[in-house]
Amino acid sequence: MTPENTPTVSPTQAAREDELVDRVVASFDGADDPRLRDVLQSLTRHLHAFVRDVRLTEDEWNTGIEFLTATGHITDDRRQEFILLSDVLGASMQTVTVNNEARGEATEATVFGPFFIEDSPEVAIGGDIAGGASGQPCWVEGTVRTADGKPLAGARIEVWEADDNGLYDVQYDEERVSARAHLFSDDDGRYAFWALTPTPYPIPHDGPVGSLLAAVGRSPMRASHLHFMVTAPGMRRLVTHIFVRGDDLLDSDSVFGVKDSLVMDFVEQAAGTATPDGRDLAGAVWARVEFDIVLADAE
Amino acid sequence: MTPENTPTVSPTQAAREDELVDRVVASFDGADDPRLRDVLQSLTRHLHAFVRDVRLTEDEWNTGIEFLTATGHITDDRRQEFILLSDVLGASMQTVTVNNEARGEATEATVFGPFFIEDSPEVAIGGDIAGGASGQPCWVEGTVRTADGKPLAGARIEVWEADDNGLYDVQYDEERVSARAHLFSDDDGRYAFWALTPTPYPIPHDGPVGSLLAAVGRSPMRASHLHFMVTAPGMRRLVTHIFVRGDDLLDSDSVFGVKDSLVMDFVEQAAGTATPDGRDLAGAVWARVEFDIVLADAE
Repeated sequence: MTPENTPTVSPTQAAREDELVDRVVASFDGADDPRLRDVLQSLTRHLHAFVRDVRLTEDEWNTGIEFLTATGHITDDRRQEFILLSDVLGASMQTVTVNNEARGEATEATVFGPFFIEDSPEVAIGGDIAGGASGQPCWVEGTVRTADGKPLAGARIEVWEADDNGLYDVQYDEERVSARAHLFSDDDGRYAFWALTPTPYPIPHDGPVGSLLAAVGRSPMRASHLHFMVTAPGMRRLVTHIFVRGDDLLDSDSVFGVKDSLVMDFVEQAAGTATPDGRDLAGAVWARVEFDIVLADAE
Repeated sequence: MTPENTPTVSPTQAAREDELVDRVVASFDGADDPRLRDVLQSLTRHLHAFVRDVRLTEDEWNTGIEFLTATGHITDDRRQEFILLSDVLGASMQTVTVNNEARGEATEATVFGPFFIEDSPEVAIGGDIAGGASGQPCWVEGTVRTADGKPLAGARIEVWEADDNGLYDVQYDEERVSARAHLFSDDDGRYAFWALTPTPYPIPHDGPVGSLLAAVGRSPMRASHLHFMVTAPGMRRLVTHIFVRGDDLLDSDSVFGVKDSLVMDFVEQAAGTATPDGRDLAGAVWARVEFDIVLADAE
């Protein structure tokens, strides 16, 4: 509902509604932690403005309570429906955006997603992160540098992705660790590894968030992507993805994670083309992509 | 956080944040149901405004996800923590307020609360709703009328309240139905019944909402009250409470339900004072209150 078509109410009614907002805001005045006070007072103002702008009915309020209840009940150690809800409302991406203001030439950030895990296996430069996951082999290489172009040696590069079934390792019933790893940039800031060419997949959509998307005619599909998290001493941590130029889903990513600067050329190589490291792919088609990473200085 | 101390960001950064809001809003354009579209687009705008105004950190976003997860996990058939959350943020009362615009002399509405149940027992006029619940006997009487003063005969009056342990019947482990009933106004629009003098009690505060209140120094106590829901053909349904004049909690009700027009004189009667209907209270102190109800016309 745009401001232009917000229903108008009488001044008396507006005063009653304002007075309630003021009372709720004031109820947080005594919080010891000023940041907690500010966050809850702002939340109160925006939540009440929403209820008032749409003139939320009591039935709709009930529907909202039931939706949140169902979202809570499907959430467990392996399924985080509240993160999905935040993602499809763009709140996750907006949080990333306000915390990663553009700084010069630094690589842009995007959503973290729910599929990162600690303690991924380490691979050497040129190693294969697939770990048995199925998909088209893809050679990924690039540099890690500071904004003024200095190579960053020993930067830790975490990478993870879905296989060509559209699933991360943690989504399989059996225990597996695949299509995830970490490596370190060399003395010239260079890195390279074998991964899988990213393919599109839906966010889990058999729960309340999937029903919401269906009700508004939105697809649960994510644009194809490969996750990166890059850290180096003294530099701002970078959490990002690279996307595949030409992917039909770039304009309709279900979690709003795509940025133009993160769309890369994944160049398909005909069967039999020699690989950069001499790896024998038994005649398979493969792809290659370059991704040069620029880290901002830490604050 | 008031608008005056919202952090300022560069025009470039503001444009990035605006662009994301626009993209998320546009994602709902294709919804078949225009009302659902309007509600979700307004929710998106206000949610993003909140994230941007407070410059929500990624850690705070995580804390929010964890809070909602815990709220979902404590919620079951007997415990509705999302309603409590809505209540303590004043969102329940604001929803009541926007749906019950003041109409002339009509009695004001307040929150429904989570403790109403269907199929309460019927009592005759002058009957006792206590059903074994403990507390001070209280004679409640009044009229049900239209805004222009016509008596409403046969209005259905549902009443429910906590006992003097601070608990509703549904909060006890064993099955019981007490301190709740319904009755009908007589041909002159009059009603009367025996209930319990309301006493203060806390909303359930051993869960995430209780922790939130504790963190900001707010009490979980509700001002003493007796619930009413009054319906009659052709009239707007009234859901309200009456409160006890002199109650210390009138200014700090944890769910913001108090309105001046709903504060009534519960007049204590010395032991041995004759009762209106000759009931023998065995020398107990009792109280009486008058509450005249005015229903608005249905829309």
